[in-house]
Amino acid sequence: VGKLAIIGLGLIGGSMGLAIKRAEPVNTEVTGYDRDFEVAERALKFGAVQKLARSAEEAVSDAAMVIVATPILNIRRVFETIAPHLRQGTVVTDTASTKGEVLRWARALLPENVHFIGGHPMAGKEKSGPEAAEESLFDGRPYVIVPNPYAAPGAVNAVIGLAQAVGGKPQFMDADEHDAYAAAISHVPLVTSLALFSLARQSTAWPELAAMSGPGFKDLTRLASGEPEMSHDIFMTNKDNVVHWLDRYVAELQRLSQLIQDGDPETLYRQLAETQMERDIFITSPPERKEHGDDTETPGAIDSFMTMLGGALWTNRAKEITDSLEEQRLQREREARMRRRPED
Amino acid sequence: VGKLAIIGLGLIGGSMGLAIKRAEPVNTEVTGYDRDFEVAERALKFGAVQKLARSAEEAVSDAAMVIVATPILNIRRVFETIAPHLRQGTVVTDTASTKGEVLRWARALLPENVHFIGGHPMAGKEKSGPEAAEESLFDGRPYVIVPNPYAAPGAVNAVIGLAQAVGGKPQFMDADEHDAYAAAISHVPLVTSLALFSLARQSTAWPELAAMSGPGFKDLTRLASGEPEMSHDIFMTNKDNVVHWLDRYVAELQRLSQLIQDGDPETLYRQLAETQMERDIFITSPPERKEHGDDTETPGAIDSFMTMLGGALWTNRAKEITDSLEEQRLQREREARMRRRPED
Repeated sequence: VGKLAIIGLGLIGGSMGLAIKRAEPVNTEVTGYDRDFEVAERALKFGAVQKLARSAEEAVSDAAMVIVATPILNIRRVFETIAPHLRQGTVVTDTASTKGEVLRWARALLPENVHFIGGHPMAGKEKSGPEAAEESLFDGRPYVIVPNPYAAPGAVNAVIGLAQAVGGKPQFMDADEHDAYAAAISHVPLVTSLALFSLARQSTAWPELAAMSGPGFKDLTRLASGEPEMSHDIFMTNKDNVVHWLDRYVAELQRLSQLIQDGDPETLYRQLAETQMERDIFITSPPERKEHGDDTETPGAIDSFMTMLGGALWTNRAKEITDSLEEQRLQREREARMRRRPED
Repeated sequence: VGKLAIIGLGLIGGSMGLAIKRAEPVNTEVTGYDRDFEVAERALKFGAVQKLARSAEEAVSDAAMVIVATPILNIRRVFETIAPHLRQGTVVTDTASTKGEVLRWARALLPENVHFIGGHPMAGKEKSGPEAAEESLFDGRPYVIVPNPYAAPGAVNAVIGLAQAVGGKPQFMDADEHDAYAAAISHVPLVTSLALFSLARQSTAWPELAAMSGPGFKDLTRLASGEPEMSHDIFMTNKDNVVHWLDRYVAELQRLSQLIQDGDPETLYRQLAETQMERDIFITSPPERKEHGDDTETPGAIDSFMTMLGGALWTNRAKEITDSLEEQRLQREREARMRRRPED
């Protein structure tokens, strides 16, 4: 029996457990650990894991794969704790929203005979805890994979397989690239949402503003209801990128403000019409990422994941989730990505 | 037969027509006009109006009530056009998203023997045109009513009745107050949404950013898909308030950016936790507007609206939509509101 360990059993860890269970891996046992014992017990009750460990050390001992799904700033301590207890060849991955610090901690703290491959399943919701976990949370969502340049192909393949088995769409990038992009598309939007809510909430006219508010204000401030610990850890581990993109965002706001003040109706109208058109294109036919690789055939990634775990071939359910063509495309994409450097 | 005219048969004008039809006013004929004849024909086909007029003049002649639902900057010309053709005592209202300019135009251009009461049903969606119109668009949404201080109570009551008949919740304020509040809760959010989309779209990494984007980015940029003419007219007629609140928004962003840069984790965490709590309170139990009036009983407003139109009592369907207690509360609210001055 292969052993998979999940450390941290909140929304993401719990959903990983449920999504792995849905993929029906054979001969695999999923063991969980959470520093909060009540959270761990609820995760067990909801079926996210099959067994609970009494410590992170116990959870990872003899595990073929370890998924660290704790708050970002706790990952460092988890690495320190589990490092002496990992068996040779174990694949360690994480689910954190920022990747630079996590990869640095992995390099500094994990033994050289285990394989660390960073991961970021780009999914979430405002609710937290194992109660909020869903087996379909990652379905169709990007799952960013950040391998070290010297990562063993088999280990990378296992994490690709994990990403696909839980329903995600693997995307490859390096840590700097990930953190810059995530700042622009996810962390700065979080700040804009927080600021928009605070602005209205701090006004003496708040009762009037609240009474007049509609779906627009609710949607735009939704992210302000996110878990404070998660937002905090994101900002603390991606400070420079967030500040950089926030400056650019402020410059863009000031450009629009100037357009409004200048009162040249035609320029303003043209700008608004162009943005509307581009937004509509984004929704109806989003741009393709440009990279293309070669045609080399590679073994199926879910296969690698399942084989590594249980020593058995993949199950029918896992087969349904993807197909080998998709895997080949992703493998090519990964190889092409590894040859590139981040830009912007 | 009483005649109601709707000038401008797009999303809002069309939805007003459908919502009025749903209220089943008796002995009432709804006539529509749109400068775009194809739009007018589609509105007729979808049942938003019973008849089409060949001109705005023809539409308003002998009308007991006129609803102007054109883009904001066109309202001025509509007033000029219809002014000589309005019969004495006609109630004229509008649906524009800003109220200061509209009330100034009404005072300057409409004859003194008609009653102008400004209106702003706070509802909308990204799609436009009569195809997108819905009879339930205003259900449960705030419907801001902006009477002149010297407005005849009967005329105000008729517009309250209209607001309730189409499913809205009447709220009273003066034009300055409305435009300041709308800038904070609606027009600045629109700018933040436009800027967030442009920022990502203009980046050379756009294909990567788009591929990584999730529901958060989609929700936060939704307003960027709004009709450019509407956004344009809002900004042009509410410039000072929008610029004022945008400056405050930028200051709030810079405050958060500083918190992130300073790296005092505790202050940042406390701020995030506080915002989350306040946002959750806003969603689960939004604040009440503070004003209270006296207990004076007033005649039912839908009654006024229906009586003015068809000379008949309201129908069963209209009775379902509201009840007299609600009307009394709203009347009191209006009276209290008229005694206050705008703040913030």
